[in-house]
Amino acid sequence: MTLIIVKTIREMQKISFENKRKGLKTAVVPTMGFLHNGHLSLIKKGKQIADVVITTLFVNPTQFAPNEDFNKYPRDFDKDFKLCEDSGSDYLFLPDTKEMYPDGFSTSIEIKGITCKFEGEFRPAHFSGVATVVAKLFNATLPDFAVFGQKDYQQTLLIKKLNDDLNFGIEIVVSETIREIDGLAMSSRNTYLSPENRAKAVSIFHSIEAAKKVIKEGDTDRKIINSVLLESLKSVPELKVDYASAALADTLEEPDTFNSGDEIVILMAVHLGKTRLIDNSIVKIP
Amino acid sequence: MTLIIVKTIREMQKISFENKRKGLKTAVVPTMGFLHNGHLSLIKKGKQIADVVITTLFVNPTQFAPNEDFNKYPRDFDKDFKLCEDSGSDYLFLPDTKEMYPDGFSTSIEIKGITCKFEGEFRPAHFSGVATVVAKLFNATLPDFAVFGQKDYQQTLLIKKLNDDLNFGIEIVVSETIREIDGLAMSSRNTYLSPENRAKAVSIFHSIEAAKKVIKEGDTDRKIINSVLLESLKSVPELKVDYASAALADTLEEPDTFNSGDEIVILMAVHLGKTRLIDNSIVKIP
Repeated sequence: MTLIIVKTIREMQKISFENKRKGLKTAVVPTMGFLHNGHLSLIKKGKQIADVVITTLFVNPTQFAPNEDFNKYPRDFDKDFKLCEDSGSDYLFLPDTKEMYPDGFSTSIEIKGITCKFEGEFRPAHFSGVATVVAKLFNATLPDFAVFGQKDYQQTLLIKKLNDDLNFGIEIVVSETIREIDGLAMSSRNTYLSPENRAKAVSIFHSIEAAKKVIKEGDTDRKIINSVLLESLKSVPELKVDYASAALADTLEEPDTFNSGDEIVILMAVHLGKTRLIDNSIVKIP
Repeated sequence: MTLIIVKTIREMQKISFENKRKGLKTAVVPTMGFLHNGHLSLIKKGKQIADVVITTLFVNPTQFAPNEDFNKYPRDFDKDFKLCEDSGSDYLFLPDTKEMYPDGFSTSIEIKGITCKFEGEFRPAHFSGVATVVAKLFNATLPDFAVFGQKDYQQTLLIKKLNDDLNFGIEIVVSETIREIDGLAMSSRNTYLSPENRAKAVSIFHSIEAAKKVIKEGDTDRKIINSVLLESLKSVPELKVDYASAALADTLEEPDTFNSGDEIVILMAVHLGKTRLIDNSIVKIP
């Protein structure tokens, strides 16, 4: 089947409403394009759980700070179209910036609590931009399911909160992080890395594995877990760490000691050269 | 037909979705209860334009400041139920506070621009509370139409902006203000007024009429129009004015001079005793 491009919100709503009327279930996969296997796994997940998959492609300016990489964010529409079609997406929702943010646009959605720390600390306006654009995408695509990658872990918590608090009634599906052969989490931003830094970037994955190892061996002291994480990252002196910590997976709270049975997330953001990379993994305290 | 009470968001969504599936058009009429003829005219308007009318009754705590009248806001459920049923509403959506704001609720919607002045100046958190609860009510009731009273004029601009900016795709219908025989705009808060103050409250309407008169006679200078408004209000020395001004109806901008053909709104908020009252009227510059 041919991938259908939809450029306006009104047309997307019309199509989505008609599909709803027919009793078809829709999954939306929001992306900023430059698709890699991580995105494609989300589209495939959508195909498994729904009748119709809408992939959205919009590089959302409001979730980038002025000093961030909005302008140089990688774009390759022709490749994205082909990958999206090959993965079985039915629609590609492709609004331009004017369509999403016409003159006079003045609304923003703020979510307190889980957005304050980690990414929220280093990218203060980021999550408000994400929440606002995702609410718009939800209303444009009227989905039954929305599929997000676990790689943006804190974002997935934010989306669940947005969905619950504003009563969108959508089932939020979080799909596992897809990694390169050496373990580096796939990201459109990996293309920024020089070959040398690309090789070094795997240390992010190794540090998470090291922390998971001590947890599985019985360590429950957060400071010890974090120090293992940071020690491991020091093997690459060029890495600048924004944060690297273990936290409770559902609330991101950071107790001194974790309890048996706690589900925790190890999450971090680091800079390597001019590239900022994030990764995370979930582990249960034995 | 009997009015059906719905208390949970999930049940309301289920009913609304089923009605959508059947091809029925829904109108929602959001209220805080203590219904008067103004509300009833909105319900009747809903009946005219849609197949199904959902009246919502929720005294929303987040749109009241701590020093405002949330606790003493008038409530009379039995009377509301009867009036709502008699006016032809099909459903009464009646969530409690826990249903709308469960523990951990942490989302708010901010709308800049039109919310900053007038009501926004004197009730700083009010419009964020309104926007957030209305977004929730929209998602709970999935309406094709939403009917609001012109009496809360600035609120109607906010709702239109919310609807446009977040792409709810709802048709916002603004229904004219219903007045008592002497001209006082109907309001649940009128019940706060002592008999003496109730008699004096009509001066609000008279002041608007006075301003409209000079506009119709050719005055286009905003300062002159405002001074007519304020002079007229001075006939009741007990009135404390929060604001009283003419502004462009669509943007609330306040140019020094209005142009022929401009649609303007005359709007005000005053205190009479412990009661705060608002009113407005739209007039075209000849």
